[in-house]
Amino acid sequence: MYAPTTTSELRRDAYPLLQHLCAPVPMHARRKVGIVYPTDLASLQAAVAIARAQLGVPVLIGPREPIEALARTSSLELAAIEIEDTADDPRIAATHACTLAKEKRVDILMKGGLHTDELMHAVLERDGGLRTRQRVSHTFAIELPGSDALLLLSDCAVNIQPDLATKRSIIENAMTVARAAGVAEPRIGILSATESVLPGMQSTLDAAALRTMAARGQIRGARLDGPLALDNAVSPRSAQAKKIISDVAGHADVLIMPNLEAGNILYKSLIYFGGADCAGIVIGARVPVALTSRAESLLSRVASVALGLRTLGITASDG
Amino acid sequence: MYAPTTTSELRRDAYPLLQHLCAPVPMHARRKVGIVYPTDLASLQAAVAIARAQLGVPVLIGPREPIEALARTSSLELAAIEIEDTADDPRIAATHACTLAKEKRVDILMKGGLHTDELMHAVLERDGGLRTRQRVSHTFAIELPGSDALLLLSDCAVNIQPDLATKRSIIENAMTVARAAGVAEPRIGILSATESVLPGMQSTLDAAALRTMAARGQIRGARLDGPLALDNAVSPRSAQAKKIISDVAGHADVLIMPNLEAGNILYKSLIYFGGADCAGIVIGARVPVALTSRAESLLSRVASVALGLRTLGITASDG
Repeated sequence: MYAPTTTSELRRDAYPLLQHLCAPVPMHARRKVGIVYPTDLASLQAAVAIARAQLGVPVLIGPREPIEALARTSSLELAAIEIEDTADDPRIAATHACTLAKEKRVDILMKGGLHTDELMHAVLERDGGLRTRQRVSHTFAIELPGSDALLLLSDCAVNIQPDLATKRSIIENAMTVARAAGVAEPRIGILSATESVLPGMQSTLDAAALRTMAARGQIRGARLDGPLALDNAVSPRSAQAKKIISDVAGHADVLIMPNLEAGNILYKSLIYFGGADCAGIVIGARVPVALTSRAESLLSRVASVALGLRTLGITASDG
Repeated sequence: MYAPTTTSELRRDAYPLLQHLCAPVPMHARRKVGIVYPTDLASLQAAVAIARAQLGVPVLIGPREPIEALARTSSLELAAIEIEDTADDPRIAATHACTLAKEKRVDILMKGGLHTDELMHAVLERDGGLRTRQRVSHTFAIELPGSDALLLLSDCAVNIQPDLATKRSIIENAMTVARAAGVAEPRIGILSATESVLPGMQSTLDAAALRTMAARGQIRGARLDGPLALDNAVSPRSAQAKKIISDVAGHADVLIMPNLEAGNILYKSLIYFGGADCAGIVIGARVPVALTSRAESLLSRVASVALGLRTLGITASDG
């Protein structure tokens, strides 16, 4: 059998860039972090860690009794943490969290013990949800062991088969997240299976169109190139071997994925086979939403919230 | 910058499983290995290595003069190697290689210094090509450092957006390659971005259909499960966390990719970020075709031919 290295085995002090993201930012210290349906140990631990690190002020949005019972049996101290009591139903907690966000009583949401679908359904609801004029997309910030910069990937979690207009929004949102992550002038590679434009491969046509949109100023402030294959996006040697001349090829720090499956598989490959850890955030709704999954580390959860808070000064997402 | 570990830096004796594939098989020692348009150093080196290892008998299909000149300047000894002289045009060499394959004068083809498109165009030509009733697909056998079995991926190179019928052929071809690689009873995971069936994500619907085709005996001899996300396909812990109960989840040794972009990006991720090396072969045509790329190692080239030769007893591809 393969022995994939999982994040928990690799923990120690292995991810300095993600840890750096988690440094408290004074202007965000009073921001409210709504943790949606935190009926699982991992999200309660994240709430305590967020409070302790003075990253923000956690608000637990869910059924008081089971949450307090879980804290007792896990010896977690919740006394100083606000609970916004709801019925014991993840969909009700998600809807209530969106109401709190609309009323500006929380500044960011983090997923607790419910399914991504349940939370995103409430966020994207036409009436009560948090939609703005922007499109919603997810961006990962990946730390590979030994690298000196975060690698951003989008979209690996929300948009299944994005068309050209959606890819453009994905790029704009990823640029916001890149700036929040400290990458001032992101170099954006539009990924496909090849660096050539092939009439039969739509992702190469989209990439060519996006590249030209950037050249014509329709996408602003981006150094952008595509289509690129993964190797010639991140390896200077591969870019050179293929004679691709741009300031992105070989040096991309943002990778735009051709479709959700490719994005999800790449991100998991970097975690399981590359020993990486990550933070991830949905932006484009009224508040950022951290969609951490069950398997993710405490660092990953806290860094996701920290990354989301850092986008707040950058996005104009009040629709 | 990221410092992706490339195969050449990791060489040494790092890939025992791929090296094991290259052990000579007496019944294949007289097979002819047609090397198409070998005007680059890497394919000439592979030809010499194949002859020296007694894997098969190389036949160089291309323009004699530039090939011999390159051998001289590179101090490669070609005296004992047959050259099938052609005009100095990659398309003419590719067409001639297909003619030799049809006349059973070569048993397998390996790509030399021409583009994949140029070679595959000749192979798939309706008239003069090597099509059979089978569909053609490419399968990679990946060796991750420290793993004790090869991981097979398909299709990362030929079929762009395979429909259900094509995915079924991809599975059948991958089973042949798995057996050739020594995986007697492959466990086949159909990859998507999630293990749930989502009406809006076609790759999960295809996976559900393939899973049922296996249950109904429409795909035979396969232990097959899907949809699976990469983590719950290869990590027993992730499969358990998601409560996926099958003899494939967590233990897949063949991964069927939702589309070409996802396959290409995963394979390159395993090479560049996971330190892997690979062999790869196209089957389903009259002869196997090894499509090694410029960046690949000598081991990878030779192992691809060895893997292709090992499929010869298994496939019925005379159409």
